[in-house]
Amino acid sequence: MGLEFRSADERATSLAGDLAAQLTRAGFDGASLRDVPILRKSDLGARQKADPPFGGLVKGPVDLVFQSPGPLYEPGMVSADWWRFARFLRACGIGAGDIVQNCFGYHLTPAGSMFENGARAVGAAVLPAGTGQTELQVRAAAHLGCTAYAGTPDYLMVLLEKADELGLSLGITKAAVSGGALFASLREAYAARGVRCLQCYATADLGNIAYESAPDSGLIVDEGVIVEIVTPGTGDAVPEGEVGEVVVTTLNPDYPLLRFATGDLSAVLPGQSDCGRTNMRIKGWMGRADQTAKIKGMFVRPEQVADFVARNGAVERARVVVTREGEQDAMRVLVEATGDAGGLEASVAEVLKLRGTVEVVAPGSLPRDGVVIEDQRAYD
Amino acid sequence: MGLEFRSADERATSLAGDLAAQLTRAGFDGASLRDVPILRKSDLGARQKADPPFGGLVKGPVDLVFQSPGPLYEPGMVSADWWRFARFLRACGIGAGDIVQNCFGYHLTPAGSMFENGARAVGAAVLPAGTGQTELQVRAAAHLGCTAYAGTPDYLMVLLEKADELGLSLGITKAAVSGGALFASLREAYAARGVRCLQCYATADLGNIAYESAPDSGLIVDEGVIVEIVTPGTGDAVPEGEVGEVVVTTLNPDYPLLRFATGDLSAVLPGQSDCGRTNMRIKGWMGRADQTAKIKGMFVRPEQVADFVARNGAVERARVVVTREGEQDAMRVLVEATGDAGGLEASVAEVLKLRGTVEVVAPGSLPRDGVVIEDQRAYD
Repeated sequence: MGLEFRSADERATSLAGDLAAQLTRAGFDGASLRDVPILRKSDLGARQKADPPFGGLVKGPVDLVFQSPGPLYEPGMVSADWWRFARFLRACGIGAGDIVQNCFGYHLTPAGSMFENGARAVGAAVLPAGTGQTELQVRAAAHLGCTAYAGTPDYLMVLLEKADELGLSLGITKAAVSGGALFASLREAYAARGVRCLQCYATADLGNIAYESAPDSGLIVDEGVIVEIVTPGTGDAVPEGEVGEVVVTTLNPDYPLLRFATGDLSAVLPGQSDCGRTNMRIKGWMGRADQTAKIKGMFVRPEQVADFVARNGAVERARVVVTREGEQDAMRVLVEATGDAGGLEASVAEVLKLRGTVEVVAPGSLPRDGVVIEDQRAYD
Repeated sequence: MGLEFRSADERATSLAGDLAAQLTRAGFDGASLRDVPILRKSDLGARQKADPPFGGLVKGPVDLVFQSPGPLYEPGMVSADWWRFARFLRACGIGAGDIVQNCFGYHLTPAGSMFENGARAVGAAVLPAGTGQTELQVRAAAHLGCTAYAGTPDYLMVLLEKADELGLSLGITKAAVSGGALFASLREAYAARGVRCLQCYATADLGNIAYESAPDSGLIVDEGVIVEIVTPGTGDAVPEGEVGEVVVTTLNPDYPLLRFATGDLSAVLPGQSDCGRTNMRIKGWMGRADQTAKIKGMFVRPEQVADFVARNGAVERARVVVTREGEQDAMRVLVEATGDAGGLEASVAEVLKLRGTVEVVAPGSLPRDGVVIEDQRAYD
């Protein structure tokens, strides 16, 4: 039985110890996680630029370096399950005796190496395939008797249809997908072909974060990370079940990323998985948290909205709504406020650097959807 | 000091032990290497087809499976220096502190994984890059300060010229190349840009076979293989210095390939390298040994020519020459013969399945160029 089946108490005790060690490693000795500032992708980019290649976050030598995307770099190690894909692959039923057709790319991006590393940790063999060369891939899958697929949700269908066209029968019955939306209709189409398809939520910087053990029952957070769901632009947790930005702390000692803001929205799914894995679950990807909008030529960022809320004691929650009035951008700031709501327009102008209309709404009336800046302008 | 600097006696003793163990593993217990039949690519393909994926040659589980080219499959392991590229990379001066831009592909072909595996063995970090995405690659090389290149001989120039175009200065000073001809002019062009470029001779099935430690002084056979140079179509060694087919025996216990015929021509380069590495050297690639020719609609293979020589005691050496006479193929068989050379045309017809003219020539007069079937027909 893996760590994923332990009790919540055991997990809490164990993670607390790992986290304390990780905080020490990262220079936050004795701090609590909430004291650590949120690390945004843009911060990471700036740190990497100032102190290449990894912004001082990696102390020792690394096996691998990736560039994904553009100017961001990620380290990689070949050691056992370094990116934490093993639990996901096990949940997919992949292990010794399987041959995984790994259709994630290996070039510049870490995705291919990540899944290869995870497959090795569960004892499966890997055919490094990337995308493209579809006919060769299908022939290899048929000759080798590949039993599992790893790749984006869509590409497996390309392989299966090419196999039909070539009159070849493939033995792939398990699919571990990531890196794109898995539509329910596609999952059903795979199921109809005898392929059980599960997805995980992973990023190039962090590796695997959470994974499915069954369709449509949330993604179980991996044992090697701590996930928080926060109001975008802040480090403050949303109430359980509300939508917020996914912020991840890794416990991997080689590459401590503390409170890394993914820019993705999700929410905690209450309760536990029926499969017996006991960790917190999150819903799937629910949009981008990075809602920075250009309004009247100026950028307004979620962090500014959070700052506005923090400066005004009467304001509990705020939501910037951007529209067009005639040929001009217009900004309204909806606020759930209690007590004295005076002076808010001046505060908006000061903190958001733009004039906007403030509308006070009833507490609890703003949607709990993780949206802090709602852009209603039509772009088409 | 690595094994490559040991005395010839030490090497002979050590290899004899390793070889005996390898022969036992492969089912040739107590045999000498010369007793083992030559394994051709076509034999390997047939074995793989009959007993997928590896024709029964791999006993245990593998980490990786490759398809390169077409219907041939190769195993791979992530363990230390599994494909024997470390000695080559060390000869290139690559080690801890280097970042190797690995421009060999990882998808289906093993080349990318091979060089990554070797780089890890010498303590260098790797940027898995593949080919293509040239601008991203150049920016990564500049940002990361990549110090070494691994890839085909030509692609490094593509990177360097793209860097010029982008006004970026790259720190690559070492290049480990393979998989294509390295022309002297290109090597000089790299040297003029401050890049020391060395090549190795490797195949998808065997991994690394031999490598340069300096330009233009031959390729030193790796310590993990035994190289024979034989008359194409036979298992018989040519006299030292003569051109023949490269036949390789690997000592890797995970994948014993005994007397694998590469289909490539080379020759032993007498003497030892000035660098202090003491093993046998071979000249570079000198052409294809697979000289199978279609004559009057029938295939004639080097093995048949060897069979013809073996059946006729008077014949020391033979060379089939194919020409056009009018609108017809014509076959002559030149033989170095001693004693009774009668009945040779009947033997040609029987063994080569074609009528041909036999011409007896003086012993020693046929060129020692590894060519057994010389096709003089013009195809353009």
